[in-house]
Amino acid sequence: MVKHISHIGIAVKNLEEGIEFYQKLGLELEAIEEVPSQMVRVAFFPCGDTRIELLEATSPESPIAKAIEKRGEGVHHIAFAVEDLPAALTETEANGIRLIDKEPRPGAHQADIAFLHPKSTLGVLIELCKENH
Amino acid sequence: MVKHISHIGIAVKNLEEGIEFYQKLGLELEAIEEVPSQMVRVAFFPCGDTRIELLEATSPESPIAKAIEKRGEGVHHIAFAVEDLPAALTETEANGIRLIDKEPRPGAHQADIAFLHPKSTLGVLIELCKENH
Repeated sequence: MVKHISHIGIAVKNLEEGIEFYQKLGLELEAIEEVPSQMVRVAFFPCGDTRIELLEATSPESPIAKAIEKRGEGVHHIAFAVEDLPAALTETEANGIRLIDKEPRPGAHQADIAFLHPKSTLGVLIELCKENH
Repeated sequence: MVKHISHIGIAVKNLEEGIEFYQKLGLELEAIEEVPSQMVRVAFFPCGDTRIELLEATSPESPIAKAIEKRGEGVHHIAFAVEDLPAALTETEANGIRLIDKEPRPGAHQADIAFLHPKSTLGVLIELCKENH
């Protein structure tokens, strides 16, 4: 079902500071994108067949602002790339894993995404993702 | 400097429960290894050019036991694969990033590893890793 890791989402307080850090590790900034529906600005760094995605809240109501308030900066979610997202969600639910999103919804980078329920995923926020880039 | 993500280390309370979950996502268990120096048992799941590594403490003194006590289960570290680990450490330190390990030390899967200091890495525990498998 899962092909590869689409991206690792990392919550940062300040996107420019985050960009500077990952550039120091030798990663190359691909793009910065704003996703108004999630109230975030996102910086993408390709790394092998995956990406580091830095996430900065654009509002105190953003899920990223709330995550930083609770747990500080750090890894926010892991996104696994799948070929057929509706089929993957059906299969995941049939396997006894709870879903937050029963239907795909639009994410950053033209992807369709859905989150699994963190109560079902042993402490990791997991996204399934159909990449369209 | 960084080639790809070597692995994502995930702290779990119970390795068998963790293995069952990632198998339900469609990942294939490659191997289970014990690393006595770190007091962990590790389960590897290849995923594209990276791996999910589940980490279970084998002693209450294990760094993984302490991490779970503090923050619960979840992502413990991200390991970036580099070609030349001593050179990468020199470059990283020259870029103003603090190191935990100034010299490579042996990790799971025959790798040489070194951790960066989490005070320097915006909330993410980062490992640099020379893969030898």
